[in-house]
Amino acid sequence: MSSILEEICTHVLKEVTPEPGERQRLQDLTLRLIKRTETSARENNLEVSVRLEGSLAKDTWLSSDVDIDLFIGFSPEVGRKRFEKVALEIARKVAEGHEQKERFAEHPYLEARIEGTRINLVPFYKISSDRAKRSDWMSATDRTPYHTEFIKKNLGDSLKGDVRLLKRFMKGIGVYGAEIRVGGFSGYLCELLTIHYGSFIKVLEAIAASGEMITLDYMKSYRNGDELQKFFSSNFIVVDPVDRRRNVASSVSSRKLNEFRAASRIFLKSPRERFFFPGITQPFGPDGVISTMDGKGTDIIFIKIGGAGVVSDILWGQLYKTLRSIERYLRQNDFQVLRSSAWSDEANCSLLVFELERNLLSMTKKHLGPPISKIKESADFLEKYLGSKELVAGPWIEDNRWVAQIRRRSMDARVLLERKVKNGGRDIGVGSFIAEAAMRDLEIFVNEEILDFLSSSRDFAIFLTDFLYGRPRWLESDRGNT
Amino acid sequence: MSSILEEICTHVLKEVTPEPGERQRLQDLTLRLIKRTETSARENNLEVSVRLEGSLAKDTWLSSDVDIDLFIGFSPEVGRKRFEKVALEIARKVAEGHEQKERFAEHPYLEARIEGTRINLVPFYKISSDRAKRSDWMSATDRTPYHTEFIKKNLGDSLKGDVRLLKRFMKGIGVYGAEIRVGGFSGYLCELLTIHYGSFIKVLEAIAASGEMITLDYMKSYRNGDELQKFFSSNFIVVDPVDRRRNVASSVSSRKLNEFRAASRIFLKSPRERFFFPGITQPFGPDGVISTMDGKGTDIIFIKIGGAGVVSDILWGQLYKTLRSIERYLRQNDFQVLRSSAWSDEANCSLLVFELERNLLSMTKKHLGPPISKIKESADFLEKYLGSKELVAGPWIEDNRWVAQIRRRSMDARVLLERKVKNGGRDIGVGSFIAEAAMRDLEIFVNEEILDFLSSSRDFAIFLTDFLYGRPRWLESDRGNT
Repeated sequence: MSSILEEICTHVLKEVTPEPGERQRLQDLTLRLIKRTETSARENNLEVSVRLEGSLAKDTWLSSDVDIDLFIGFSPEVGRKRFEKVALEIARKVAEGHEQKERFAEHPYLEARIEGTRINLVPFYKISSDRAKRSDWMSATDRTPYHTEFIKKNLGDSLKGDVRLLKRFMKGIGVYGAEIRVGGFSGYLCELLTIHYGSFIKVLEAIAASGEMITLDYMKSYRNGDELQKFFSSNFIVVDPVDRRRNVASSVSSRKLNEFRAASRIFLKSPRERFFFPGITQPFGPDGVISTMDGKGTDIIFIKIGGAGVVSDILWGQLYKTLRSIERYLRQNDFQVLRSSAWSDEANCSLLVFELERNLLSMTKKHLGPPISKIKESADFLEKYLGSKELVAGPWIEDNRWVAQIRRRSMDARVLLERKVKNGGRDIGVGSFIAEAAMRDLEIFVNEEILDFLSSSRDFAIFLTDFLYGRPRWLESDRGNT
Repeated sequence: MSSILEEICTHVLKEVTPEPGERQRLQDLTLRLIKRTETSARENNLEVSVRLEGSLAKDTWLSSDVDIDLFIGFSPEVGRKRFEKVALEIARKVAEGHEQKERFAEHPYLEARIEGTRINLVPFYKISSDRAKRSDWMSATDRTPYHTEFIKKNLGDSLKGDVRLLKRFMKGIGVYGAEIRVGGFSGYLCELLTIHYGSFIKVLEAIAASGEMITLDYMKSYRNGDELQKFFSSNFIVVDPVDRRRNVASSVSSRKLNEFRAASRIFLKSPRERFFFPGITQPFGPDGVISTMDGKGTDIIFIKIGGAGVVSDILWGQLYKTLRSIERYLRQNDFQVLRSSAWSDEANCSLLVFELERNLLSMTKKHLGPPISKIKESADFLEKYLGSKELVAGPWIEDNRWVAQIRRRSMDARVLLERKVKNGGRDIGVGSFIAEAAMRDLEIFVNEEILDFLSSSRDFAIFLTDFLYGRPRWLESDRGNT
């Protein structure tokens, strides 16, 4: 390891490893919450076992950046409806008097903020190890205790710092988090990668040198790569040691994997602390936005949609789907889309952003008709266009097909999108909840028309600034950070 | 045959069939010219046989639209150089005192205008029928007497009117002529098609109904279509009855074949005399050009190049090649080309015309970099663009590759083309003679800048008017003809 690399890692590790005081505070809080949960369960005439899960349980958490994940274990005999209902009742009681929010993954759970720390109170079914071996789970969270056990058993104390470095690195370059908004790496995946490759640096080296395919099968659950590939059909496969049918890396988008790949290479070659701590973007003010937009000579279209009233993962799933659909629709209508991105406050408003070469197209376009060999289609084509108002020139024959120059229906991207999205745009692939929200509350801004909204949200201003720069923070050397 | 169709054919046939007076005049002139040629040859101490060839010999010529093709037959013992030199001397003597022009196909010949008729004086070698059977020709014109004999023998008197109708139809729709400028059907090909299918209408019906492939092997020189296709590799094959190795249809471009196909279908369905006689385009004046251009909202670029000093077929071959090359170059530089076309006075100036959606592109563009899996290329890409003046935003990762937003080198099609063509543009595929001419004399006009030149050439004004309409005359029902 180069001495600069070593120095940086040592320094970062110091930053992210919790001090005894912080550990003690969290341990005390955890114990009190476990007791409170057990009491609350007993008041509901239920015998539950409460377990600490997550990075705190595995001692792989980052200082000042940790949730307490309390898992409330139900007997498999409790019916699913009761499991969901009672778990929330118990949890609400535990968090009584504190900020709390019902959340939803595969089933509901409660997020609360108690003494400055985020607490997740999550129900699960206690599945026997026999059933677990058969992957006979009852709910999506039932695996978690087995994950925790696996990591506790296989991650030596000496590797915990490496996991912390890897997590901080991934956070720094923006690829950490299995939630749909990020599409990146889960904490569990970081732990498995560290166990498999043996250190933080070895993970980076392996990923940096990896080809198209990355497959990890720690428990040798499959005979070979072909069998793995056949079962999971993915370029990035990490078989879950506690459930051979699950790919722990399935949450990782190819973009995020490639960002991790590229950042690993560059970091190993030119180590910098900014990979771990990129700093917070200093957002442009109105003048900065305008002059940057002018300097690009492109047009940026903002579709602002009201709150969709769905949980984060569903919202982001639909935002990304809608982003792709609208981008495709723009391309089909001959607009050159350079980039697109989505922002949301996850409550009242979301924005879909498209950067176009131009938002106004030429008035007319070349329209390819049928091959001359298609007699019926050719006759229909001529019948349709000859003498029609759409026709500007032609039809003429180019090689073996009819071609005409016709007037465009939509020269203006704003008009095109307004017409389509204000009716929901379900036919072009707008997500159902986004469509409903758009029909209630839709605004479209072009270029500097966004300034009003920009001044109302610092988070959006940061998003837009990063969008305008367009490169990952870890590639920056010239941008001022706060 | 529908009565309208019959009526039209009868009327057109009357127009194109020569009256006895015209026949007599041409016959007299022909006899005098043959005698004069023989005398001139004898003065050069050469014994030649002079033959009338072409449509006049075959009685398939169109009234008021005929050349006298006099072929001067040399013995195979005469050397090639002498053959070329003496033939021209003889011909010049024949045309003495008349407008005359040296022309060049595979070898030189003389074109003259005598008593208002165009005369072609063409040398050929008299090849014995044994050698002819072996396709053992000495020059490209040696086949012609055999073509004439074949047609005389196989085209009954009753079919001559059908050939005349077919030729007039092809002239009317603009597909007649084997020269490179047209890329269409030769007179000989019209005669063969008529013999093969049996009448004018039957030719049209056959072509209208034809699939992708048309193959005619009148003499059954090949075993089957596969063998034909293998030998000629073309979609339109008409084996020359006097030379099995020659495809009489090789001059026909797929565009012209398809125009003939499409026009045949439409004519058979809705017969109109305008297919035969489309009239002469009434050219737009300056106001008409400007208002039509404005109505299209496109940009038209005119590349005007001085005389190339080469014969017609070579000029047009290079003009078309150059047209394709420049169109490709424009597309490579992100310009949307709707159409292109070439015009030339075949002496002092040629124009290449490109209609673009816009002649100005956006300032910046999306530039696709290497896949992340290419480690070296990725590093080079980042090195090249990070911190470069070209870079406007990014680089970012899209799926599996690097992408950057960069400044365009050329936003303006005129600047792009000027820079390239004024140096000849050989590297992008500009033809050699065109390149030389362009380096001597090049002007580029955009849109209404062409008006000055337009007012100087009625022929160009007609060309541009047809270009702006963009559809074949036979599709027009609404355009006024003179």
